[in-house]
Amino acid sequence: MSSAWLLPEHLADVLPAQARRIEELRRQLLDLARSYGCELVAPPLLEHLDSLLSGPGRALNLRTFKLVDQLSGRSLGVRADMTPQVARIDAHLLNRRGVTRLCYCGPVVHTRPATPLATREPLQFGVEVYGHAGLEADLEVIELALDGLERVGAPVSLLDLGDARPLQALLADVEPQVAEAIRSALSVRDAQALQLAAAPLGGDRQLALVRLLQLEGGVEVLAQARALLPSSPQLESALRDLQWLCEHLQRVRPQLALALDLTSLVSNDYYTGVCFTAYGAGQHQALVRGGRYDEVGAAFGRRRPAVGFSLDLKALVDSVPAEPLRAAIRAPWGEAPALRDAVRALRQTGETVVCVLPGHEDEGEEYACDRQLVAQGGTWVVQPL
Amino acid sequence: MSSAWLLPEHLADVLPAQARRIEELRRQLLDLARSYGCELVAPPLLEHLDSLLSGPGRALNLRTFKLVDQLSGRSLGVRADMTPQVARIDAHLLNRRGVTRLCYCGPVVHTRPATPLATREPLQFGVEVYGHAGLEADLEVIELALDGLERVGAPVSLLDLGDARPLQALLADVEPQVAEAIRSALSVRDAQALQLAAAPLGGDRQLALVRLLQLEGGVEVLAQARALLPSSPQLESALRDLQWLCEHLQRVRPQLALALDLTSLVSNDYYTGVCFTAYGAGQHQALVRGGRYDEVGAAFGRRRPAVGFSLDLKALVDSVPAEPLRAAIRAPWGEAPALRDAVRALRQTGETVVCVLPGHEDEGEEYACDRQLVAQGGTWVVQPL
Repeated sequence: MSSAWLLPEHLADVLPAQARRIEELRRQLLDLARSYGCELVAPPLLEHLDSLLSGPGRALNLRTFKLVDQLSGRSLGVRADMTPQVARIDAHLLNRRGVTRLCYCGPVVHTRPATPLATREPLQFGVEVYGHAGLEADLEVIELALDGLERVGAPVSLLDLGDARPLQALLADVEPQVAEAIRSALSVRDAQALQLAAAPLGGDRQLALVRLLQLEGGVEVLAQARALLPSSPQLESALRDLQWLCEHLQRVRPQLALALDLTSLVSNDYYTGVCFTAYGAGQHQALVRGGRYDEVGAAFGRRRPAVGFSLDLKALVDSVPAEPLRAAIRAPWGEAPALRDAVRALRQTGETVVCVLPGHEDEGEEYACDRQLVAQGGTWVVQPL
Repeated sequence: MSSAWLLPEHLADVLPAQARRIEELRRQLLDLARSYGCELVAPPLLEHLDSLLSGPGRALNLRTFKLVDQLSGRSLGVRADMTPQVARIDAHLLNRRGVTRLCYCGPVVHTRPATPLATREPLQFGVEVYGHAGLEADLEVIELALDGLERVGAPVSLLDLGDARPLQALLADVEPQVAEAIRSALSVRDAQALQLAAAPLGGDRQLALVRLLQLEGGVEVLAQARALLPSSPQLESALRDLQWLCEHLQRVRPQLALALDLTSLVSNDYYTGVCFTAYGAGQHQALVRGGRYDEVGAAFGRRRPAVGFSLDLKALVDSVPAEPLRAAIRAPWGEAPALRDAVRALRQTGETVVCVLPGHEDEGEEYACDRQLVAQGGTWVVQPL
């Protein structure tokens, strides 16, 4: 019983100051998404396991908590990612033909933390645009992410652009185990391990993979890739798409630094096209990740073009400068109509008015008050404390 | 695979129109709670089972989904109620001496629906006031609930007031099985079953229990209870507290109908004093439930006076008149700086501007637009559609 207040590792209470800031970020991002025409949806926390882990969710198996539904005897999972759920909503519930823009914000739960310091319960905010295969949708999603981070006070200084297709082309007919070893070496940028892992593929492809690892930098990477990598339809379309996005981003966001890295985003295997990661100034932790994953609805019987991004509000709040919270007004407790009217009127203007309950007049302030409501000549007025 | 989009029973996606209204209710209620001086907290979705089920959570065992923590091997539960969690935060994390007002809003999950049509994932909003044993705290909490429901458009027309103590006094030394049968008969207001269940207690107490069942109505019930029920310190304090609250509520809310029912709230066994349920006009489903549960922090080593309420936003939204959503502005896709500036400026004023992606000009509107952005003499202007 003495440990009843101890929480499991990597799970924590969000206390008042942090909770209020997260709530503000949440509102700012949802409002911005709405201003772009995104409609809010809220899928359930629990779903049938086979639904959560189908299609884009297949990589989530080990991160998903499982339990049994007493009503049906079937296995349920606690969602570890809302992206597959929102794809299911687009595919089945809305079932529209045209462009659909959706946004969401809710907790997801992981069996193990994604990084040594991560929470196991991120608060995921995300946007998805379905039904448009053209790069205008990718551009809109990237701009929405950039706008959102700027609005909450965490402006992006570096946008990392990658593409899933060059690697997919090189690994097209490779055995899963070998491909896994190669992806693993690429993800930690280990050239030696990559050489070793790629040896079964023969000289040309081994060389191409090592060059892929070296191809990082500015927009010049696109020309280098075209010169150094073996040509394939996938490579061509990736380079063409990245070129288009770079040009358009440079036009609409001339201040934004772009980095290209054809291997940087291999960890999430549901991307099927351009993918991106955004960083704040001097930060190594990504603020947001996103990309195109056109296959996302296939598991739900409806293959639609899809592009989107997501972020964790609990992580984002640490990248946002803390704004001083507005202090409250202290008021005496009482039932006189004039006092009650004064309190009510102040609250309606958005002020916080803390009524001091009888007997607690001498307590230290639990809620920071910088003003007080006092009776003066028959009316109640606000005075500095 | 064909059923990958089917959800478990009593779990549902919240689709755009409903999700947006719930989001609005959420903001209105959180903002109102803040204006009263309530600080927002967010406990985790999962906790150690012994923590979730200790103290006030002991009745939640059958309603709580259980799973195993891979990191520790210990049993975890998915929270079925946030009240015990918030009590833990007050007792341990904040650990303050004075009055602490907390509010929260988040999903809870039940293994079985509470009623035949209920969701298994309510979105719980609640307020708790700790550290004040006087009735001023009960009054403040009730008024906050009434204000909140009024603000969201679901005004309370009937407030049902009860008290846990008269029944507790009558059942003080009764065997658990007998007490359970009596509570069960009371909860469905079955006089015959009550007679039978109370038989082992002997004539006087049996009679008192039947009278308890009959005692319902307006404020006059208090005098009747004093005349008809056997006196006890618990009964005296309950009647005195209810009298005080009725008088004060009639003063500050003269329009509000009050109903007294000394047995109506026996189902939740963590209440220790006055408890209340609020109903909208002509509604049988309670909008909000609350009361005093001073023992709530004891399991966490810190017994503090506590009073609060909670409600389910997913249920509440059905009691709120649907307001027409503001329609959006349709804009062409383009990169001309003047167009982009116009779109951005409109979005900053809170408008939704949907840019029609190339090739989708002839699609039916997915997002209702009643205006459009058109170029006129070199500038972009909004026109009715």
